[in-house]
Amino acid sequence: MDGEVIESEGLRHTPAGLARLAFRMRHTSMQQEAGMQRQVQCEVPALALGEVAQKLGNLQPGQQLRAEGFLAQRSLKSMQLVLHIDNVILR
Amino acid sequence: MDGEVIESEGLRHTPAGLARLAFRMRHTSMQQEAGMQRQVQCEVPALALGEVAQKLGNLQPGQQLRAEGFLAQRSLKSMQLVLHIDNVILR
Repeated sequence: MDGEVIESEGLRHTPAGLARLAFRMRHTSMQQEAGMQRQVQCEVPALALGEVAQKLGNLQPGQQLRAEGFLAQRSLKSMQLVLHIDNVILR
Repeated sequence: MDGEVIESEGLRHTPAGLARLAFRMRHTSMQQEAGMQRQVQCEVPALALGEVAQKLGNLQPGQQLRAEGFLAQRSLKSMQLVLHIDNVILR
């Protein structure tokens, strides 16, 4: 998913010492749906752990990036989706 | 995204006469994160319009499928993510 960083918590560490970076990104694009062009926008909570988090440590709002990963629930109690990032390209 | 249908509203039509099918799907998989294997589960609201909706009209809970599409916000007011499906394979 391509997007722009809206806000970042800054680099933290888990109790086990794993680097952890939570941020929000905004994605905007044109998509084809039922034969019509439409603009799509969404804000997605994102989470990077370990090496990816360290690489992103200085992430600033406005940074453009392409994030690849998988969607998972925030927790057992929350249905909210979080994009877990396992590969990222800064632009 | 591979998943299983949890519930489906059934086939409806928009005021403009476009077929519309909203359903929820559950995705479960193993993913690699920070060098560790983890199980991922999430429930994702999904929306199909037009031909894709018609193709899926009889969707039943328990149906396995692979859905391809894009994520968008449910509405301007809601940050909830919805998977808009532009291609689907029933399994």
